[in-house]
Amino acid sequence: MTALACDIGGTNIKLGLVAQGRVLQSTSLPSGSDRPLRERLTPLAEACEALCRQAHTTPSACAGIAVGFPALVDRQRGRILTEHGKYCDGPAVDLPAWARQRWNIPLALENDASLALIGEWRNGAGRGCDNLVMITLGTGIGTAVILEGRVLRGRHGQAGNLGGHLVVNFDGRAGPGTVAGSVESESSSLALPEIARSLPGFPDSRLTQIPRLDYEAVFRLAAENDAGAVALRQRTLAVWSALVISLIHAFDPERILVGGGIMRSADVIVPVLAQAARSAYTPWGQVTVAAGELGDNAALLGAEWLLQERFE
Amino acid sequence: MTALACDIGGTNIKLGLVAQGRVLQSTSLPSGSDRPLRERLTPLAEACEALCRQAHTTPSACAGIAVGFPALVDRQRGRILTEHGKYCDGPAVDLPAWARQRWNIPLALENDASLALIGEWRNGAGRGCDNLVMITLGTGIGTAVILEGRVLRGRHGQAGNLGGHLVVNFDGRAGPGTVAGSVESESSSLALPEIARSLPGFPDSRLTQIPRLDYEAVFRLAAENDAGAVALRQRTLAVWSALVISLIHAFDPERILVGGGIMRSADVIVPVLAQAARSAYTPWGQVTVAAGELGDNAALLGAEWLLQERFE
Repeated sequence: MTALACDIGGTNIKLGLVAQGRVLQSTSLPSGSDRPLRERLTPLAEACEALCRQAHTTPSACAGIAVGFPALVDRQRGRILTEHGKYCDGPAVDLPAWARQRWNIPLALENDASLALIGEWRNGAGRGCDNLVMITLGTGIGTAVILEGRVLRGRHGQAGNLGGHLVVNFDGRAGPGTVAGSVESESSSLALPEIARSLPGFPDSRLTQIPRLDYEAVFRLAAENDAGAVALRQRTLAVWSALVISLIHAFDPERILVGGGIMRSADVIVPVLAQAARSAYTPWGQVTVAAGELGDNAALLGAEWLLQERFE
Repeated sequence: MTALACDIGGTNIKLGLVAQGRVLQSTSLPSGSDRPLRERLTPLAEACEALCRQAHTTPSACAGIAVGFPALVDRQRGRILTEHGKYCDGPAVDLPAWARQRWNIPLALENDASLALIGEWRNGAGRGCDNLVMITLGTGIGTAVILEGRVLRGRHGQAGNLGGHLVVNFDGRAGPGTVAGSVESESSSLALPEIARSLPGFPDSRLTQIPRLDYEAVFRLAAENDAGAVALRQRTLAVWSALVISLIHAFDPERILVGGGIMRSADVIVPVLAQAARSAYTPWGQVTVAAGELGDNAALLGAEWLLQERFE
């Protein structure tokens, strides 16, 4: 089959035409997530049609369109369940009806982290393993779980996707948009500036010169032995290590995949998280930790499996 | 059907004859868990046979025997997977073969926390709800999960059963038999004495007079306004609240059941944990928190469903 794939993010919407585990064509457009989703549907549709023209086909000739969306979703009904200041009208938009009207093809909606994990499972670093957890380290921290070959979803679409809100500090700081002491409140990009300021070495650190502190800056300065950045990197890796251990104890995976832009520093991150995984209780053997292989294409490459699961 | 049920604990082995969601007869014998399990099988079998005689039946006339065991188990093969200083030969014992040879009936093995949750689900505080998490607060802290009407188990029998080892303090203390900063290391009975000594009010507290500190003493003295006990109770409830939030974010339950001997203080514990549940992210509605209803009989009352699931 040839499938359309659409990975809707906070900054960009990535579109692809995929077949047999390969991205044939791809493009992206600005997400415009401060505007209603309904306003983005026409440019999105036109971009899909242009993409198909380049490959000498049409959306209507595709087996369907898979959409990854950065929120909790109701997969059965194809509806967005939650809204976090992006695409304020998301929950009111009937995406399957839109795809049916415009192209007469089925649309499958999935949480973005789950769709990226499906892509890595079928075509990337999760191949050959039916018990997987994926952690995506971005502005927020997303997780997804495949357990005995099934995507874990739960009654309300929450199971497995809220690892960023597991509590790793029962006495911890409140964070923006999350519970006190959660992984996100203790390590998300949004929380980084406040955490940095609380560290003793901060005033003498070159971190003070960074206008918008993010992981990239922390890992870059830590690699240059800036003491404040080293301390912040160590604290952040301790939080992520706690997450790894909790995810192993919760979900019984055989492999943990880690994705997100900061995985350019995979050579530092993966060994630390692998060490954490070794301290978890797994009498059956050893959970491996690996970087995702597919980068930005992971969600696009989950499209074919998702459409097959939903409509075959 | 009439089923034999056997709940093997660290202190006692509880036996029951159950039918239609009721315990017809029950008895218990000392666990003798410092000895090999094989040595306990003859007294255990004789106790089952005596129990059946009281009800004018025999084990061979029962539909089967369900066994809850305090370890990770391989449900398919009916084997104990792990050993924690109790019944050192557990993993070598073929319980299904034993039941077949002695009585020619099938034996279904389950983790003890999962079997107690099954009992509450079919016959107790979980009735009518197919998305449940149970927390058992004992010497250790056990958890079990039912997700969309299926007992969560995972590839190696670990999924859902290791909630006591979720990390709630990424910078936390090492604990006996668990990872640093886990729920058990921060709040199990085994860790209580050390945690108590670390609290500022401890030297002036009547806790100092308790030879073997346990939750019962902490909650009793806290109810009498002993300041050290109040501080320790508050810290413990903060740890369990973090566990509740993490379990909601991991597993998407609609109801959380809490069991264990300390639930004699349910009037103090349940409102605090219910408050924690309200702070979790559940846009679909509200997770309720309730005390288990079946007490020591919970695992026995899971026997019928387990045997049906396994052998029908």
